[in-house]
Amino acid sequence: MNELSVGVEVEVPFYDVDAMNFAWHGNYFKYFELARCALLRLIDYDYPRMKASGYLWPIVETRVKYVRPATYGQKLRVEARLIEYENRIKIAYLIKDASTGEKMTQAYTVQVAVDAEKRELQFVSPEIVVKNVQNALKR
Amino acid sequence: MNELSVGVEVEVPFYDVDAMNFAWHGNYFKYFELARCALLRLIDYDYPRMKASGYLWPIVETRVKYVRPATYGQKLRVEARLIEYENRIKIAYLIKDASTGEKMTQAYTVQVAVDAEKRELQFVSPEIVVKNVQNALKR
Amino acid sequence: MNELSVGVEVEVPFYDVDAMNFAWHGNYFKYFELARCALLRLIDYDYPRMKASGYLWPIVETRVKYVRPATYGQKLRVEARLIEYENRIKIAYLIKDASTGEKMTQAYTVQVAVDAEKRELQFVSPEIVVKNVQNALKR
Amino acid sequence: MNELSVGVEVEVPFYDVDAMNFAWHGNYFKYFELARCALLRLIDYDYPRMKASGYLWPIVETRVKYVRPATYGQKLRVEARLIEYENRIKIAYLIKDASTGEKMTQAYTVQVAVDAEKRELQFVSPEIVVKNVQNALKR
Repeated sequence: MNELSVGVEVEVPFYDVDAMNFAWHGNYFKYFELARCALLRLIDYDYPRMKASGYLWPIVETRVKYVRPATYGQKLRVEARLIEYENRIKIAYLIKDASTGEKMTQAYTVQVAVDAEKRELQFVSPEIVVKNVQNALKR
Repeated sequence: MNELSVGVEVEVPFYDVDAMNFAWHGNYFKYFELARCALLRLIDYDYPRMKASGYLWPIVETRVKYVRPATYGQKLRVEARLIEYENRIKIAYLIKDASTGEKMTQAYTVQVAVDAEKRELQFVSPEIVVKNVQNALKR
Repeated sequence: MNELSVGVEVEVPFYDVDAMNFAWHGNYFKYFELARCALLRLIDYDYPRMKASGYLWPIVETRVKYVRPATYGQKLRVEARLIEYENRIKIAYLIKDASTGEKMTQAYTVQVAVDAEKRELQFVSPEIVVKNVQNALKR
Repeated sequence: MNELSVGVEVEVPFYDVDAMNFAWHGNYFKYFELARCALLRLIDYDYPRMKASGYLWPIVETRVKYVRPATYGQKLRVEARLIEYENRIKIAYLIKDASTGEKMTQAYTVQVAVDAEKRELQFVSPEIVVKNVQNALKR
């Protein structure tokens, strides 16, 4: 592999749909997170592991382009792709309609490591992340 | 006035805080929306009015920079400022700690008008929006 | 069949977990709803069909017993069972750990039909519901 | 005082309203929590204090009666009243329309103390809770 990526399926639930009959824009961050957690599991660094490693990874930046609105019951494919990992974790997301493949939404998130004890921002990713990504890429 | 802006106060509720003890990043879209609705009320074009005017205004783009994480019970001031309105509605947001004034989060959202019946994207804002903004600016 | 029931799987997502590291109690209404929608599909009366039939079905009562707290990544099986349908829709829910079968949560919800136009409460379920349930029971 | 109670105001936000144009039933648990946290502050035992005292207080039971549906922008008054505290914390909630006083929703929640370290359920409330409630009642 020369790139890490993963896809999950999400069906838009009733409780995510707003009074305009579309999935409310803020709910997409849940869909991104489902794909992000799947991606982090690929590098054996999901939230419990993060915590155990002594680092938090808050999201410090995000950008989203909503191309087509999603509706109740629509099946979406949410793809997450690891773009950067050496100094920070940048993940790109692409949401498509699961049956037609039409592009629905495009986004990215940026996370940085914070030492959980000292609350200090890390300007380089902790060794465990770099090692785990490189191992996953060899598979 | 030569610019429309408004501020609301939000206290971070327990249910918005995640397992890392910070307000979960996706929840900020709720805080932005509270300020956005207050801003839309200034131009008499809040959601019920939108719907009555025959247009939906889905959010098509957003960008957020999370500068400092927010914690349970923290009082935030969320400011919204109208940046564009003639062809689309672009709103800038600034979240500060309500007591210290420290900058917490910065963002913008872009919305476009969609004809509710024909589901057609409008490339120019409906007249009612332009008129209402200009009236509000005269106040 | 002499009873309608259905089960769905839910994996507790990170965004549902609170600062105590447990799934926040209010989030279970999302899990119940996923199972409820699956049950309503069995009788061909999911939300879009409801709306088309001219009735809304607001939830008027609920009760929940939280037996064991759920944690991030835990796989849950959420079962929904139709208990009443002739005058109102009452559904019972049982959440178990998907791998151990341990009982996690128990609940019910009650919904009543409301005429969407007249906003009038119906004291008897609309014919379409009774017919659809009886058809589903024959399968 | 021979009873502890408190009221908070909530305005139904757009993001809480579902495709039926009503506040989604699961969102009321957020309104209850805002009032519950205000009540817990009266006895100086809000979430951070709880955690510091070595106990978690998961909700183990709830019951809600939704009398009237709430809509976008509606102002609600949410009252919380402490019903039991010696062996468990039981709180009753009453939501009224803030301007008409009409009853909207009625509920209760039951919480029990759990030793945070040993994960053991406590059958009697920790001394700090009993003392704090009794002090607050004297005020």
